[in-house]
Amino acid sequence: MSKALVSIVMGSDSDLDIMREAAAALEGFGIGYEIDVTSAHRSPERTAEYAQKAASRGVRVIIAGAGGAAHLAGVIAAHTWLPVLGVPIQSKLHGLDSLLSTAQMPGGIPVGTLAIGEAGAKNAALLATAILATSDETIRQKLEDFRRKQSEAVLAVKLPK
Amino acid sequence: MSKALVSIVMGSDSDLDIMREAAAALEGFGIGYEIDVTSAHRSPERTAEYAQKAASRGVRVIIAGAGGAAHLAGVIAAHTWLPVLGVPIQSKLHGLDSLLSTAQMPGGIPVGTLAIGEAGAKNAALLATAILATSDETIRQKLEDFRRKQSEAVLAVKLPK
Amino acid sequence: MSKALVSIVMGSDSDLDIMREAAAALEGFGIGYEIDVTSAHRSPERTAEYAQKAASRGVRVIIAGAGGAAHLAGVIAAHTWLPVLGVPIQSKLHGLDSLLSTAQMPGGIPVGTLAIGEAGAKNAALLATAILATSDETIRQKLEDFRRKQSEAVLAVKLPK
Amino acid sequence: MSKALVSIVMGSDSDLDIMREAAAALEGFGIGYEIDVTSAHRSPERTAEYAQKAASRGVRVIIAGAGGAAHLAGVIAAHTWLPVLGVPIQSKLHGLDSLLSTAQMPGGIPVGTLAIGEAGAKNAALLATAILATSDETIRQKLEDFRRKQSEAVLAVKLPK
Amino acid sequence: MSKALVSIVMGSDSDLDIMREAAAALEGFGIGYEIDVTSAHRSPERTAEYAQKAASRGVRVIIAGAGGAAHLAGVIAAHTWLPVLGVPIQSKLHGLDSLLSTAQMPGGIPVGTLAIGEAGAKNAALLATAILATSDETIRQKLEDFRRKQSEAVLAVKLPK
Amino acid sequence: MSKALVSIVMGSDSDLDIMREAAAALEGFGIGYEIDVTSAHRSPERTAEYAQKAASRGVRVIIAGAGGAAHLAGVIAAHTWLPVLGVPIQSKLHGLDSLLSTAQMPGGIPVGTLAIGEAGAKNAALLATAILATSDETIRQKLEDFRRKQSEAVLAVKLPK
Amino acid sequence: MSKALVSIVMGSDSDLDIMREAAAALEGFGIGYEIDVTSAHRSPERTAEYAQKAASRGVRVIIAGAGGAAHLAGVIAAHTWLPVLGVPIQSKLHGLDSLLSTAQMPGGIPVGTLAIGEAGAKNAALLATAILATSDETIRQKLEDFRRKQSEAVLAVKLPK
Amino acid sequence: MSKALVSIVMGSDSDLDIMREAAAALEGFGIGYEIDVTSAHRSPERTAEYAQKAASRGVRVIIAGAGGAAHLAGVIAAHTWLPVLGVPIQSKLHGLDSLLSTAQMPGGIPVGTLAIGEAGAKNAALLATAILATSDETIRQKLEDFRRKQSEAVLAVKLPK
Repeated sequence: MSKALVSIVMGSDSDLDIMREAAAALEGFGIGYEIDVTSAHRSPERTAEYAQKAASRGVRVIIAGAGGAAHLAGVIAAHTWLPVLGVPIQSKLHGLDSLLSTAQMPGGIPVGTLAIGEAGAKNAALLATAILATSDETIRQKLEDFRRKQSEAVLAVKLPK
Repeated sequence: MSKALVSIVMGSDSDLDIMREAAAALEGFGIGYEIDVTSAHRSPERTAEYAQKAASRGVRVIIAGAGGAAHLAGVIAAHTWLPVLGVPIQSKLHGLDSLLSTAQMPGGIPVGTLAIGEAGAKNAALLATAILATSDETIRQKLEDFRRKQSEAVLAVKLPK
Repeated sequence: MSKALVSIVMGSDSDLDIMREAAAALEGFGIGYEIDVTSAHRSPERTAEYAQKAASRGVRVIIAGAGGAAHLAGVIAAHTWLPVLGVPIQSKLHGLDSLLSTAQMPGGIPVGTLAIGEAGAKNAALLATAILATSDETIRQKLEDFRRKQSEAVLAVKLPK
Repeated sequence: MSKALVSIVMGSDSDLDIMREAAAALEGFGIGYEIDVTSAHRSPERTAEYAQKAASRGVRVIIAGAGGAAHLAGVIAAHTWLPVLGVPIQSKLHGLDSLLSTAQMPGGIPVGTLAIGEAGAKNAALLATAILATSDETIRQKLEDFRRKQSEAVLAVKLPK
Repeated sequence: MSKALVSIVMGSDSDLDIMREAAAALEGFGIGYEIDVTSAHRSPERTAEYAQKAASRGVRVIIAGAGGAAHLAGVIAAHTWLPVLGVPIQSKLHGLDSLLSTAQMPGGIPVGTLAIGEAGAKNAALLATAILATSDETIRQKLEDFRRKQSEAVLAVKLPK
Repeated sequence: MSKALVSIVMGSDSDLDIMREAAAALEGFGIGYEIDVTSAHRSPERTAEYAQKAASRGVRVIIAGAGGAAHLAGVIAAHTWLPVLGVPIQSKLHGLDSLLSTAQMPGGIPVGTLAIGEAGAKNAALLATAILATSDETIRQKLEDFRRKQSEAVLAVKLPK
Repeated sequence: MSKALVSIVMGSDSDLDIMREAAAALEGFGIGYEIDVTSAHRSPERTAEYAQKAASRGVRVIIAGAGGAAHLAGVIAAHTWLPVLGVPIQSKLHGLDSLLSTAQMPGGIPVGTLAIGEAGAKNAALLATAILATSDETIRQKLEDFRRKQSEAVLAVKLPK
Repeated sequence: MSKALVSIVMGSDSDLDIMREAAAALEGFGIGYEIDVTSAHRSPERTAEYAQKAASRGVRVIIAGAGGAAHLAGVIAAHTWLPVLGVPIQSKLHGLDSLLSTAQMPGGIPVGTLAIGEAGAKNAALLATAILATSDETIRQKLEDFRRKQSEAVLAVKLPK
């Protein structure tokens, strides 16, 4: 695989089924990515170091998925200037806690939050792709193709009688 | 002002006090921006056209602020491949409706959602800056300076006795 | 089937099981309808065109079902003067997000919102029927019959011992 | 004033400031309306009789505004085949209780629910107008004019520097 | 069975499994009850008449269970001076809508609201029993016995190792 | 004043403005009451003793108002067989916490919960009155008079032009 | 087992599966504990006595788990100066009611609230351990070991390909 | 002042008015404390270092107050074995976001969460005092005195006529 431009991290390997949606979407665009588990709470030094070194490794966007008091995206954003995208993962309160913990960041440290769960993981990858596309013609072209095909797929739906 | 790299739109001029936070942050980085009112509901053709032409005008990121059943960011995202950042603006339900309407997008069309209100508007500008910084050394340097000064400001706080 | 007076649209074919309740209720009154999938986000031009042309095709009421950041009813209402009825479809947050995204429309573009899920889909059809009944004696008579029978059915319920 | 085609009712005269928005919008279209206070709980017989006789008085749409455990729209809908539109009015819980009490009707008795508060009252009148417009060319023309002017007003907004 | 002192009503026979908890608790005290289905929305006249005549039939407390926009308890309370107890039944939003629709009654018409679901149904019967016990020594004695045995049962719980 | 048939308690004297609504309503019916402050948390022994002795003092219904993690009504209900009515008082979360803490009692110990705030305090008194009316003809007559006058007052409302 | 330093109580034996997580964590540190069922509502005297005598028995921290209108932790805290930790247990509203009923205590009587469900039960034991560790070197050392191993376990996670 | 046994930290000096309640309560017991501003997001290295060194400085309990996506308590807990108590501070969503972000921690890293706002700040200090009292007779005695006086103050409340 090509060099990792996008980093996908999650707080626990139990989040993997959901975060695979992000990986699959990036693969569809041929965008290199790395994927790892690191916890804001149980491995904080490693999380800080991971975030601090991501830019110098060539990563351009970080996607972080976590549930409950979902601090992972915010903690990573605290340690890097890179764009950080947060995916709230459903938990006891169906992800309402995860969504609020990810989105309600204080002024100064931004996290771009996507929807709860699988749709959010997929969209995080699509937004990362759009970010890369702002300075990469090839990716932009692939993204425009994807969007056109996606529209065509909706137009082609036939409802069963 | 230099060419607009960021477009700030809002659903109503009553949202201006909040969205000015985004403009002010971009000005702090010397990043050119345009700012306008367009409604997903009351001027839908203009909103669609605005979104469709933004990339060719040179815009690289769109920030959309709206309240209530806040569709503006989602509708703009539907009409452009550019990264779209949504700012939920507080309303009757304190912005919970605006946050859910902005964040809970279906798979396929991403919106990166920030916090409700002023903090979210400021952070949308900071995230747009980070996106630009992924391909612009000068902006990256300014963003790292900003982040360092922001940390130093926290360290310098003296609580009154 | 007779000419379509009611248009039923949904954002995804995964919503069909719920929206069939609307179709079934209209069939019970012998009211012609069309049913289709169109997405506010993934096929926005088609959605706009669909809404713009509905009145001239003879449609008198549009029913739109969608979930999550449910923009479909609002986007359709933005493109037509016809009465638009929204059905929030349950999702990660059990439809609370869908309900708020459908109901909390800004002043100027109305959407009449029904309950979350199957009950809402059925009631959207009943409200469309009532709208048609305001200018059609035959439909009004059928609706009054339906209501009377519905009452009688409640009166006839026998609880098991 | 011309004959009342729309009936505006509210549960308490404390709701009048909000429900005036509905009256004002109808006046803008020259549509005759009646406006009254009747409570689902404190004057139930009168509310039932009001609803039962509305159609025969010539009313074509009923708009009901109430707050808290907002039963007014549902109780009126139980007593008439006419289209009933509900306006949730904010209370201790900012209208979340009013919205759920109005929107979550069981299958069989529909209420078309608008947004909480002033925007909802205005939109109830606009939806009533759209309902009347399905069978009245003059009203339809006025509604299309209103919508065009509303769009033009958004396009004409100039943000202060 | 002895004369009905308590009336248990529900909006739909699908609520029976939950409302049986109320019936079972009353049977445990040997208190006569009637149990029936009547809908605030689908059979409003019957519901009104039922409530209006309950006191003269000898009923002393009415228990009403309903879900969603749960209007049944409030509508019954509007038509009788008898104490009315409401049981919110879970629905799409897990009973939050039912609870708010039952509890948030306006000043003037009280409903005593119990917990969502089975626990609420059981407790409605226990509260009805307590109400009867305020003027009936035999019932009071049985209630005190029940409460003492209930405490003893908690004290006797042995956790498995 | 006549002997106290109703006991009004609240967790803090800051709740008095709201709980006065209950006292005023009882005074309107000439029903004797006592009113006091006792805390489930800060004076638990006194609260327990107060509840345990209420019945033998002649009290027939207890009304308890509290906010936040509102345990007062539940704790009182744990110590008496008397009917206990709970009034949730608004706090940081506008009374949603108070409402859930009062209403969601486990099976076995009932609390009849009224609306949040002033309306709930008034209705607690009205429900206490209805409970007393089940065995007191004079009170029943006064309650029916109150209800009739309340209806007439609604019928007499004249909206300003 | 060694003397009980931690007391684990729960409102019902149906909470045992969740509260076992607390017991298991304490066992991992070799900390003596007692575990019992006592209800704030159904056995209030025993609960009060249990709390009042815990300190003199040598207990140093009390963990209380309960659901719904979860009063157990607050009631215990009212009867002891010992640190009390509350575990909200999920119920009809997924534990939102339990969380608010446990956390929103009035000033004067503190309860340290953990997360809803299993994670909260485990963390209550870990927080109790930390409390004991503030004055016990052996426990502190074990806790630091646990935390280090926990971090290492996260670092050692290998995602499947 | 004596050596700091308790550390009070907050994410911003705008939180000081609320967190002063904690300081005042500790002063009432003569317990030494330090109070400082440090942000989980804007000064993450300093926050980590602060937490890592607190135990060796002699601190025994850390109290952390923050609002919105309130990560401060969780981030501090990630870097120390000391007991960490979190105070959710109200923000756009009245503190619901702050409460969920503080309380819903994953298993392994506990935070004892208090109520939203002033009551929570005061109670954090009282819980810290109780923790210290588990190994300090003098503090235990002062805490028991405080609790007795607090009860007496409730008993002494006289309601105005």
